[in-house]
Amino acid sequence: MSAIQYTAAELAERFDLLVKGDGGRLVDGVGTLAGAGASQLSFLSNGKYASQLAATRAGVVVLSAADAAGCPATMLVAADPYVAYAKIAALFERLPAAPAGIHPSAVVAASARVSASASIGPCCVVGDGAVIGDGAVLGPHCIIGEQCTVGAQSRLVARVTLVTRVTLGRRVLVHPGAVIGSDGFGLAFDRDHWVKLPQLGGVLIGDDCEIGANTTIDRGALDDTVLEEDVRLDNQIQIAHNVHVGAHTAMAGCAAVAGSARIGRYCMIGGNAGVLGHLELADRVTITAKSLVTRSIREPGEYSSGVPLQENLLWRKNAARFKHLDEYARRLSVLEKDSDND
Amino acid sequence: MSAIQYTAAELAERFDLLVKGDGGRLVDGVGTLAGAGASQLSFLSNGKYASQLAATRAGVVVLSAADAAGCPATMLVAADPYVAYAKIAALFERLPAAPAGIHPSAVVAASARVSASASIGPCCVVGDGAVIGDGAVLGPHCIIGEQCTVGAQSRLVARVTLVTRVTLGRRVLVHPGAVIGSDGFGLAFDRDHWVKLPQLGGVLIGDDCEIGANTTIDRGALDDTVLEEDVRLDNQIQIAHNVHVGAHTAMAGCAAVAGSARIGRYCMIGGNAGVLGHLELADRVTITAKSLVTRSIREPGEYSSGVPLQENLLWRKNAARFKHLDEYARRLSVLEKDSDND
Amino acid sequence: MSAIQYTAAELAERFDLLVKGDGGRLVDGVGTLAGAGASQLSFLSNGKYASQLAATRAGVVVLSAADAAGCPATMLVAADPYVAYAKIAALFERLPAAPAGIHPSAVVAASARVSASASIGPCCVVGDGAVIGDGAVLGPHCIIGEQCTVGAQSRLVARVTLVTRVTLGRRVLVHPGAVIGSDGFGLAFDRDHWVKLPQLGGVLIGDDCEIGANTTIDRGALDDTVLEEDVRLDNQIQIAHNVHVGAHTAMAGCAAVAGSARIGRYCMIGGNAGVLGHLELADRVTITAKSLVTRSIREPGEYSSGVPLQENLLWRKNAARFKHLDEYARRLSVLEKDSDND
Repeated sequence: MSAIQYTAAELAERFDLLVKGDGGRLVDGVGTLAGAGASQLSFLSNGKYASQLAATRAGVVVLSAADAAGCPATMLVAADPYVAYAKIAALFERLPAAPAGIHPSAVVAASARVSASASIGPCCVVGDGAVIGDGAVLGPHCIIGEQCTVGAQSRLVARVTLVTRVTLGRRVLVHPGAVIGSDGFGLAFDRDHWVKLPQLGGVLIGDDCEIGANTTIDRGALDDTVLEEDVRLDNQIQIAHNVHVGAHTAMAGCAAVAGSARIGRYCMIGGNAGVLGHLELADRVTITAKSLVTRSIREPGEYSSGVPLQENLLWRKNAARFKHLDEYARRLSVLEKDSDND
Repeated sequence: MSAIQYTAAELAERFDLLVKGDGGRLVDGVGTLAGAGASQLSFLSNGKYASQLAATRAGVVVLSAADAAGCPATMLVAADPYVAYAKIAALFERLPAAPAGIHPSAVVAASARVSASASIGPCCVVGDGAVIGDGAVLGPHCIIGEQCTVGAQSRLVARVTLVTRVTLGRRVLVHPGAVIGSDGFGLAFDRDHWVKLPQLGGVLIGDDCEIGANTTIDRGALDDTVLEEDVRLDNQIQIAHNVHVGAHTAMAGCAAVAGSARIGRYCMIGGNAGVLGHLELADRVTITAKSLVTRSIREPGEYSSGVPLQENLLWRKNAARFKHLDEYARRLSVLEKDSDND
Repeated sequence: MSAIQYTAAELAERFDLLVKGDGGRLVDGVGTLAGAGASQLSFLSNGKYASQLAATRAGVVVLSAADAAGCPATMLVAADPYVAYAKIAALFERLPAAPAGIHPSAVVAASARVSASASIGPCCVVGDGAVIGDGAVLGPHCIIGEQCTVGAQSRLVARVTLVTRVTLGRRVLVHPGAVIGSDGFGLAFDRDHWVKLPQLGGVLIGDDCEIGANTTIDRGALDDTVLEEDVRLDNQIQIAHNVHVGAHTAMAGCAAVAGSARIGRYCMIGGNAGVLGHLELADRVTITAKSLVTRSIREPGEYSSGVPLQENLLWRKNAARFKHLDEYARRLSVLEKDSDND
C-alpha cells in the first residue's frame, strides 16, 4: 500500500546506526519479530522477546550489539534499540489528511485569528479571540473556547474541548474527548449549602506535551494550571486546578492529581495512582500503579502503596486481620517484655 | 403511552415459561415489585426483595418455582427469572427514531461506503474509506475515522469517536463519549526527553460487544487491540494498546487494563480494578472491585486485594502499623525461637 | 480589561462584612495574596498562607478577625472568609456570551419546546419532546435526547450529552464531556452469553447541582437515578443506575458509586473513592480518597481504607508479609497461650 521505502543503509545513515548485513535491503514498513515479513523492519529491546529473534522473518532488525548473535536478518545496531525503532517507525506513520483551511461546517468567530496554514475540521467551533497557530490541525468536532490559543504544529485529533483561557504550546498532541480548561472543583460551605468559587485562572500546556483521550485538566482558581514541556499524559487522567507538572513527566492511564499539587520533572506516575492536594513531589519520583501519595516526597526514587492480590478466601482472612494490626503490634510488644523478664 | 401489549400466556409461549394464574392478563410495561401496577410485569430474582412479593400490585410476576408460594399475581415461572425478565423487558424498550439515510448536517467522505439502510445522525463525520453496515445507527455527533468499519445492526448512541483502523462487528452497542482507536501510550526515553512510538495497529471489536460511556480503547502499536465477541464494558473503562479480551468477559465501571495484557473468556473484572501490562488471566477469573492484578493468573477463581474500610481513627492506627509489618513478622519469629528454647 | 469596579465599602455592605481601613479602596479583580496588586482583592482562609499576609500588595484582603493583625491592606472581616471571598469573586467572573436564540447550525426537533430566552449554541442537537427552560444555556455541541428537560437558568458549558429521560433542575451546571442518562450496566447471564437488561428508567438531577467534565451518570433500570439538590460532582465520576445521592453531598474527582447505592445528605466522597452496589451511607459520612466502601455505614463520621505509601523496597517487604497476616495473628495467639502457661 505504502509507497514509502528505505534501504537499511539509508536508515542507518539517517539515525546514526551501524548496519550489519545487506545494507541494500529495502524496508517498506515495520512489524513485530513474530509478524514482520521480508520487506519489514522489526526490533528487539525487551529481553522477553529475545527467543523470537532466531525465527524472525523480518528483513531488518534493530537491536543492541549484545543481541546481534544469531539474528538471521540485516541488523541495525543501536545503543538504544527502542528509541531507534521509534524514530524509524515514525517514517511509516500516515496521519489523516488535514488540508489547510476551514471546513464549511465549522463555526469560527470573526474575532478569532486562524493561521492560513492551519486546518480546521468539520463541525469545529472556534470562539472569540481564539488563536490557531501555523500548521495546527483541529480534527472534527473540536471546540476552542474564548481566549484560547493552539500553538503552531499542534494537533487536536478530534472532539477536543478547550474551555477557556487555555494556551497550548507548539507540537502539542491532544486525543479525542480531552477537556482542558474546565472549571476547577472549588466550593465553600456556607452553613447548609455550597457556594461555588469562580475559577478565574487558565491552563498553560508546554511544547511537545501529549494529552490522552478523555483526560481532563481543570483551569486554575486564580493562577494557572501548568504542564511544562514534554509532559505525557495517557487516557482518562484527571489534573485538578492549579496543579503544576514538571517537564518530561509521564503519567499512565487513570492517574489523578488533586488541586495545587506540584509534581517534579522526569517523574513517572503509574496507572490509576493518585496524588493528594497541595503536596510536592521532587524530580525523578516514580509512583507505582494504584498507589496513593498522601505526603510530599522530597527524594527521587520509587514509591508504592497497596497490598498484593490473593485468592479471595485467603485474602478475606488476611484483610480481616488488618483491622486489628495495631492490637497485634501491642500484643507483640507485651510478649517481648514478658520474654525479657523471664 | 405505549400501545404494546402482551398477555401472560403470549409471553410464556414466546419465552418458554410456565404460566400460573390468569394467562389472559394483559401486560403493557414492566416495573419493580414495589412500583409495578396491574398492567405491568415485575420479577423476583434477588432474595433481598422476596419480602416485597406478597404486597406487590404487579399484574404478572416472573419468578422461580421455589418462590411461587404467596405470589398474589399471575406468575411466569422461569428457571432463571432474571434472564426471562430481561428478554421480556426488551419488548417494551423504545429506542429513539433512527431513520435510514444521512442527516443533512452530517459530513460523509465521498469514498466512504454507507449502507442505504444505515442511519447517520446530525453532525456525524464519516472519514475516507469508512464502511457503515446494513441497519447500523450512528446517533448524533459520531465521528468515524479513516478506514474504520461499523458492522451491521451496530448502534453508536451518540458522540462516539472511532479514531483510526477500528473495526466493529455486528450488533455492537457503543455509548456516548467512548473513544476507540486512539493512540496507544507508547514512549521511548531518549536521554532527556520522550520520543513517541507511532501506533500503527488497529482495534477489532467482536459481535455483540457493548462499550460504555466515556470508555477508551486504544489501538495497537503494531498488532491490533482485540475484544472478542460479547465482551461487555461499563463506563469509563480504559483498555490500553494490544490488550486482548476474551469472549463474554464483563468489566464494571472504571476498570483499567494496561498494555498487552491478555484477559481470558468469561472473566469478571470488578469496578475500578486494574490489570498491569503484559499479564495473562485465565478464563473464568473474577477480580473484585478496586483490586490490582500484578501477576498472571493461571487458575479460574476469585481474586482480591485491598484492606477493609474502618472508622478513620482506627484505620490510621492500623495503617501506620502496616509500615512495620516485616519487622513484626521477624520479631514474632524471634519470640517463637525463644519460646522453643525455653 | 474589566470595567467592573467596587469599593471595599460597597462589598462590605453587599455581603455583610466589616471594613477596616480605607472603605473607598477600589477593587477591579481578585488574586492570591502573593500575586494580587493594588486594585485587587485577596483573601486569607487557610493558615498555610498566613505568612504571606504581611507582604501582600493586594488592595483589599478578606480575612477573619483573628488574622487582622499585621495586614497591610484594607480589610474585609468575615466570619467565614472563604465563603465571603467566593461570593465577591463571583462578581468578577465573565462567562462566555450566550445570546438568546438558536444557532443556525443547531438541529432542533420540531416537537422540542425551547424557551425564547434560552441560548442554543453551535451544533447542538435537541431531540423530540425535549424541553429547554428559561434562560438555560446550551454551549456548543450539546446533545439533548428525546424526552429530556433542562431547567431554567441551567448551563451546559459545551459538549454535554443527555441521553434519554433526563431531567435537570434549575441552575444546574454541567461541564464538557459529561454523559447523563446513558444505559445502566445491566446484564443477565444466559448459560453461555450475556443478555442485556433494557434500562427503562431515567435520571433526575435536582436544582443547583454541578456535574464535572467527563462524568457519567447512568439512567435507572426501572426507577430513576436521583441526585437531590446542590449535589456537587467533580470530573470523571461514575454514578451507576438507580443510585440515589442526598442533597449537598460532594464527590471529588474519579469517585465511583455502583448500582442502587444510596448516599446520604452532606456526605463527602474523596477522590477515586468507591462505593459498592446496594449499600447505604448515612448523612454526613466522609470517605477519604481511594477508599472502597464495602458495607453500609449507619453513623456519620470519617472512614478510610488503604495502606500508606512507602519507598518501594520497604513497601515490598511489608506487602509480602500481608499475605500471611492471618497466620501471624494465629501464631501470636499461640505464643500468648504458651506464655500464660509458663
